[in-house]
Amino acid sequence: MDSVNRQWRLVRRPVGAAKVSDMEFHEGDIPDASALADGQILVRTSVFLHAPTMRNWMDEPGNNYYPSVPLGAPMLATCAGTVVASKDPRFTPGDRVTTIGSWQDYAIVDANVMPVRPVRPDVSLVQAMGPLGMNALTAYMGMTKIGRPEPGDVLVVSGAAGSTGSVAGQIGKIMGCRVIGIAGSTDKCNYLTQDLGFDAAINYRDTNVEQEIRALAPAGINVFFDNVGGEILQAAVENIAKNGVIVLCGQIAGYDNSEPISGPRNMMRLVYGSVRMQGFLLGDFEAEIPTATDQLWEWLSAGKIKHREDLREGFESLPESFGDLSKGLNDGTLLVVTQDQEAHSTAL
Amino acid sequence: MDSVNRQWRLVRRPVGAAKVSDMEFHEGDIPDASALADGQILVRTSVFLHAPTMRNWMDEPGNNYYPSVPLGAPMLATCAGTVVASKDPRFTPGDRVTTIGSWQDYAIVDANVMPVRPVRPDVSLVQAMGPLGMNALTAYMGMTKIGRPEPGDVLVVSGAAGSTGSVAGQIGKIMGCRVIGIAGSTDKCNYLTQDLGFDAAINYRDTNVEQEIRALAPAGINVFFDNVGGEILQAAVENIAKNGVIVLCGQIAGYDNSEPISGPRNMMRLVYGSVRMQGFLLGDFEAEIPTATDQLWEWLSAGKIKHREDLREGFESLPESFGDLSKGLNDGTLLVVTQDQEAHSTAL
Repeated sequence: MDSVNRQWRLVRRPVGAAKVSDMEFHEGDIPDASALADGQILVRTSVFLHAPTMRNWMDEPGNNYYPSVPLGAPMLATCAGTVVASKDPRFTPGDRVTTIGSWQDYAIVDANVMPVRPVRPDVSLVQAMGPLGMNALTAYMGMTKIGRPEPGDVLVVSGAAGSTGSVAGQIGKIMGCRVIGIAGSTDKCNYLTQDLGFDAAINYRDTNVEQEIRALAPAGINVFFDNVGGEILQAAVENIAKNGVIVLCGQIAGYDNSEPISGPRNMMRLVYGSVRMQGFLLGDFEAEIPTATDQLWEWLSAGKIKHREDLREGFESLPESFGDLSKGLNDGTLLVVTQDQEAHSTAL
Repeated sequence: MDSVNRQWRLVRRPVGAAKVSDMEFHEGDIPDASALADGQILVRTSVFLHAPTMRNWMDEPGNNYYPSVPLGAPMLATCAGTVVASKDPRFTPGDRVTTIGSWQDYAIVDANVMPVRPVRPDVSLVQAMGPLGMNALTAYMGMTKIGRPEPGDVLVVSGAAGSTGSVAGQIGKIMGCRVIGIAGSTDKCNYLTQDLGFDAAINYRDTNVEQEIRALAPAGINVFFDNVGGEILQAAVENIAKNGVIVLCGQIAGYDNSEPISGPRNMMRLVYGSVRMQGFLLGDFEAEIPTATDQLWEWLSAGKIKHREDLREGFESLPESFGDLSKGLNDGTLLVVTQDQEAHSTAL
């Protein structure tokens, strides 16, 4: 049993990208099980996910549409771990779960407010956070519930080499689409076409994305799965087909800015194109997550979906490795393993 | 029988609002029935609709999402009239139809390209263009196919005193919504609340729309029916509820500008709010227009929907009265009657 609870607390609102100095390391007592209120569970964390949207959670409160971590509190984060105490009848000590906890070894989670999802006994916590994790599930819901392409449709994915985008594109292939990925380096583009089976890839850093999409898909985009926003979204809007769908999954281009990120410049194209542009969150489809998890696991086991995790070691590294995410220095879903044995073993 | 075919031709691309001097009056021969190709019909026009979106059709070609009237050609317009010759087996001389023709007494219409809709025998062409016309049908489709509010939802309509908006709001009342209209004068606001049964109205010229919506609908907007765009859309986005829907019907605020009209400034609200923003055109639902027409007629006959037409007289007045539309000088759906007797009689 541990003797201290380590935390990384948010102590400054980042200006631009989040810096290590915006966080402060802290060691304190492990919360006592008797401190739990009804509906709460105490989770010993083993794996943390770094997701781009967490940068939004570091901003000032004041908008009512996403959470703002209070200054001085441990940074909010998706994590996996083991229940060590529970005052929610659905959970028992020893249960392995994924949830939204925070950057600390022991997190009290209100299971009536935050999603707490059991982990299949045959997968490790790393697998539950990687190939079956929030990003993969988000890709699944975005494609099957929002994008809903028909076989033969042209699917374009931005942030395509990222954790969510790479799965979205591969699901697009399974659904019978022609899939074009947009990513930020030649290596990433090669990964998409050579390893993941994308039909084409566009390196946005060295080409005119709008023209390149037009060349690759002269009849237009049927479904655009957008993780990036900004100029990349604009390029897609210029190429959207009649009745096209824009799946608003993320708008990474705006996360490090103090200004909110703008929408398309030519709204009439959405009107005359009968375009549906739709945002969503994974949590909108909470009831369907078990089915989605089973489906993803089947595809993964059959080799129809490939997934890469970029594993970092050690609780100490949390703020530094988060910085790598916004710099694009990760190579797959960025996970930080803080308890090695628990992270890699299954329950079987 | 007439001896000449009068036309108003577009001879200049308007800068800002369309001016009478952007058009040129012309008299020529009436097209001969023998000139018709297969699938074409010759229509003698009696009533023309002035719709804000026609301003877009006066712009340069070069985008591929709405039509551009060639310089020197008669101005494209929704109209009603009588078939005088037909090489389409579906139509016979004497049939009364609405279609997209042009500013001339005799328009050749390709019935395989343009919508040609028969007029019920019990309604006049003015009624077919007004309470049962394109704008009313657009409102019907926008509400029932795109917005799809639930009873108890908060519906906000921009351009609410306009031809489309006023019908959209009244359909919202029929669907059980709490309806708030946004319009540009005290008179218009009074019309909405006192004559049309809207629950509240906001005069955007003398108040902060964003704050006013917040005061009237603190739990947020469930469905926003947008005819205007720009800052009005922005104010609605700031107040959109979780799972809210934005029906993109028109973006009038941008029609007189040379720059395309921009979308919302804070796209993350669409993501985190799971907001669906969807454009549409009436023609997307062509097959359902007869049903919609019957339903509208039933509501009108039962007094559940009220409709105002602003009738102008005379072919000569077409360009001048179009100018009144962008100045907001119309009082209801702006129709120009060019053949008095045909316009006002039924076929019974």
